[in-house]
Amino acid sequence: MRIETLFTTNEIDESAVKGKTVVVIDVLRVCTTIAYALTNGCERIIPVDTVEAATNLTASLDKKVTLLGGEKEGKRIDGFNLGNSPLEYAPEVVNGKTIIMATTNGTRAIWKSQAAKEILIASFVNMSPVVDYLGKAGGDLVTIVCAGKQGRFSMEDAVCAGMLIELLTKENSIDLSDGSAAARLLYRLNEQSIDALLMECEHGRFLRSIGFEKDLDVCGKVDSLRILPIVKEGRIDRQKRARKA
Amino acid sequence: MRIETLFTTNEIDESAVKGKTVVVIDVLRVCTTIAYALTNGCERIIPVDTVEAATNLTASLDKKVTLLGGEKEGKRIDGFNLGNSPLEYAPEVVNGKTIIMATTNGTRAIWKSQAAKEILIASFVNMSPVVDYLGKAGGDLVTIVCAGKQGRFSMEDAVCAGMLIELLTKENSIDLSDGSAAARLLYRLNEQSIDALLMECEHGRFLRSIGFEKDLDVCGKVDSLRILPIVKEGRIDRQKRARKA
Repeated sequence: MRIETLFTTNEIDESAVKGKTVVVIDVLRVCTTIAYALTNGCERIIPVDTVEAATNLTASLDKKVTLLGGEKEGKRIDGFNLGNSPLEYAPEVVNGKTIIMATTNGTRAIWKSQAAKEILIASFVNMSPVVDYLGKAGGDLVTIVCAGKQGRFSMEDAVCAGMLIELLTKENSIDLSDGSAAARLLYRLNEQSIDALLMECEHGRFLRSIGFEKDLDVCGKVDSLRILPIVKEGRIDRQKRARKA
Repeated sequence: MRIETLFTTNEIDESAVKGKTVVVIDVLRVCTTIAYALTNGCERIIPVDTVEAATNLTASLDKKVTLLGGEKEGKRIDGFNLGNSPLEYAPEVVNGKTIIMATTNGTRAIWKSQAAKEILIASFVNMSPVVDYLGKAGGDLVTIVCAGKQGRFSMEDAVCAGMLIELLTKENSIDLSDGSAAARLLYRLNEQSIDALLMECEHGRFLRSIGFEKDLDVCGKVDSLRILPIVKEGRIDRQKRARKA
């Protein structure tokens, strides 16, 4: 297996994703939020790359079972039902619903990776299901796409990628790109302090400054959910085995 | 001072460079080669972004004092006088010459950073002059652009950026982006083994495979040259104080 790691969505091109298994990581917060929504009974998530695309798509769907979720500058978008906090995606809100999601970094990363063979959604909360799947069925060419923040490197996504790589290399013979090797080193330096990392990284400080400190606790809980969201034909459907750990 | 670090040329946009002091790092090899060429008497270097731009530009210049230098896939380009090995840019070859340079990563990084207030050329061989200049006259907003390799993260450029950041933060109060913090951590892990790093990183292994192992020794010699190449109006002129350390 060869693992390549991209630290920003700007690096996504055909050579990086076409025919490969892509893992999209956006710890703060959309990949964590997607895992929570599906665990809490959401039927389907449709990630889109812009607010306009979300608004256009919702016009063609049944309003009774459709919600719009996402953020701009960390906050809920005007006219949307939900923001990007995993705590908003509670069972009583999302059960049975289809959610169209548009966020600044994470859903764009998914959107730009569409030429992939398959796209897995990963964050700290569902690390083990991702590792298990890649170890058994991931194929030989894996690209980890860190969503980053507005086209820039994010420490929390790099460390999460590094954790995935560290766990995979324990069981498998893997060729690492320089980016993958760097991510693994950054994980090893932060292995014992994921919570502190989320508090101190740039995006974590920003989220604290706008009142989302509680989200950081949720996003840092390694393996709190047993779910593997997979994007197929542009959407993520709930699997029957979704349940809380 | 705030230092932002970009790990690939794909991340360069107006917000990253406009009005800022930009430091372009391409350890393997063009930033090392530029420092060698100027130290060895080259009068002027004109970095361009494509082979076509180099060929077009040379048509308008005096052929007696103009050389074409650069690489594609690590090797000299057909019709060019020089490749991208610092060892080719000896005094008897480059003294008094203007050199137009086109490389896959480094000169493209320079080209894409043109909206900057100023552009410094850095690598391990001229670390101290870059640190001295930034500490005294670099302005409050610094962006380090790692050239990377074909739009991907390169370990050697990240570690070199980290060395620059480590040395600057010893003397100055500096706000680091996540990318800058990551680069510094990667430098600290490699501080005692720069030579080994250049042998083992992806680009170093590639250069060894095509016969450029000696270049790695040259590119890893920290502070072997006392020169600060600065791009002004699209070109780098030799300064009178250029001399070997």
